[in-house]
Amino acid sequence: MSVTVPQASTGPVDLVGRRVRVKVPATSANLGPGFDTLGLALARYDELEIEATDAAAHDIEVHGVGEGEVPLDETHLVVRAMAHTFSRVGVEMPSIRLVAHNTIPHGRGLGSSGAAIVAGVVAASGLLEGVVELSADDLLEIATELEGHPDNVAPALFGGLTIAWVTPEGPRHKKLIVHRGVSPLVLVPEHEMSTALARSLQPQSVPHEDAVFNVSRSALLIAALIQSPELLLQATEDKLHQNYRAQAMPETDRLIRVLRAAGHPAVVSGAGPSILVLASDPSARAEAVRLVEESAETAWQPLPLAVDFLGATVTPVAD
Amino acid sequence: MSVTVPQASTGPVDLVGRRVRVKVPATSANLGPGFDTLGLALARYDELEIEATDAAAHDIEVHGVGEGEVPLDETHLVVRAMAHTFSRVGVEMPSIRLVAHNTIPHGRGLGSSGAAIVAGVVAASGLLEGVVELSADDLLEIATELEGHPDNVAPALFGGLTIAWVTPEGPRHKKLIVHRGVSPLVLVPEHEMSTALARSLQPQSVPHEDAVFNVSRSALLIAALIQSPELLLQATEDKLHQNYRAQAMPETDRLIRVLRAAGHPAVVSGAGPSILVLASDPSARAEAVRLVEESAETAWQPLPLAVDFLGATVTPVAD
Repeated sequence: MSVTVPQASTGPVDLVGRRVRVKVPATSANLGPGFDTLGLALARYDELEIEATDAAAHDIEVHGVGEGEVPLDETHLVVRAMAHTFSRVGVEMPSIRLVAHNTIPHGRGLGSSGAAIVAGVVAASGLLEGVVELSADDLLEIATELEGHPDNVAPALFGGLTIAWVTPEGPRHKKLIVHRGVSPLVLVPEHEMSTALARSLQPQSVPHEDAVFNVSRSALLIAALIQSPELLLQATEDKLHQNYRAQAMPETDRLIRVLRAAGHPAVVSGAGPSILVLASDPSARAEAVRLVEESAETAWQPLPLAVDFLGATVTPVAD
Repeated sequence: MSVTVPQASTGPVDLVGRRVRVKVPATSANLGPGFDTLGLALARYDELEIEATDAAAHDIEVHGVGEGEVPLDETHLVVRAMAHTFSRVGVEMPSIRLVAHNTIPHGRGLGSSGAAIVAGVVAASGLLEGVVELSADDLLEIATELEGHPDNVAPALFGGLTIAWVTPEGPRHKKLIVHRGVSPLVLVPEHEMSTALARSLQPQSVPHEDAVFNVSRSALLIAALIQSPELLLQATEDKLHQNYRAQAMPETDRLIRVLRAAGHPAVVSGAGPSILVLASDPSARAEAVRLVEESAETAWQPLPLAVDFLGATVTPVAD
């Protein structure tokens, strides 16, 4: 990343008064066979307005999801991500006023923490415009340092379908445009799921044939999502994570089996417990909603969501 | 598969005098991360002419690769594949006259046995035209029954880049069109390699993280081969088979390391010992050839080959 200190600057960089608007999509990671690799950006957003101030402390206001629950000080995840970004580029972070309007559910496997991290990183890059130039790889690297894995932050940053992987030089991504027929449906239960618990159920080693199974399905899933939605049921088969984690979310597991048996390409969304159905058209999506209404033993909220093609956006706000 | 006995037929189906010409491409399977899954058809062919006769025995003639080596009776692989196909559709196989002109190297990881099997299957389907209709899935199923895995027979049958997988209903494939920049180079050593030996070096289980590594690279390889050849070096990384088999082909392993260190996307072709370089353009391919000439300790034949987009063809021959 390249840091440019403005020529006229003689002291610390003065950002006070700069103000940006940030919009970050929800994401669904894994997509069945693509564990820690694939992610899809979905058209449901957290929207934030962030201003650099000369106040003594941060001033944080949260509306919608997380209101009254998340901390309103420097431990707020967006603020932590901003602080990390400023620290990585060697510029002192100003106090901020932050107003968030959140719609991405928390703890449901829809990338809310990845979205908060991405919001902080792009907000910082927006406030630092003209001072520091951060490339796409830089943004992904900084966000991944906080999130641990690039598979949620890549689609939140860049939109669409992303393949994310890690190289010795840092995380990388490839963005792909999803076939217009693909009609995602997210089913959100009332209960949360801990990503840490889900990860603890992951085995150290797996049968070679299961590895090969997922290799074939993840390759096929790329082809299915960009060219051939009719292959999505076969392309979303998985033997590397959902089977190991099923015991931690029995209702999710049961409902996925019901949906798949009826031909719907259902998978665990991220670490769960939400379910993602990659319907091949809007009518198949409507059928899946009806099937869930009939079969679910607890309340599941159906969210028919479009694919987001843009990823996180940051725009300056004039006074 | 549907068998149609012609209405006028009163006895066994009479195929005597029917004659077909068959052309089958070489293939390279695995392509790095896509073990037992991915395959590429290459524009180097075995060509055969096969006629149903009323002679007492088969009459087999082989020119080119395999001449003076392969058996010239009913144990010839093409004839065995024909016999299997006839048996599967319940039609008695006639005696045949077969003339083969082979150019696909044997025992080098270029799909020669898969090509022979596919030649037999499509020759049988050609002779049976109007009697038995075999779908693409039928052809793949019959050929896979003989080859054991669909990853070589799928590209030999259908051309291009194929993803092959196995379902409870039989093997399936998805064909993709390769980006025109991709310029395959096959490097063929003088020595052969036994596929059985290569397979014996495969572990029963693998680390979960290695499985995830290949999941990401095989997904990326699909994107790289159809859209983004500049990603082929990263997309051809593998931790599921080449490392385990390296000891069985040390010179192949060494040369792949030399090529990759210089930026060339080199992988073991099939079970080896040949090397496939998925160069992103013809000039990169020429550089790889020069590098091999400088670095190889034994003789390696460079074969710059185009991708075959058609797969196996069978055409009737008039007298």
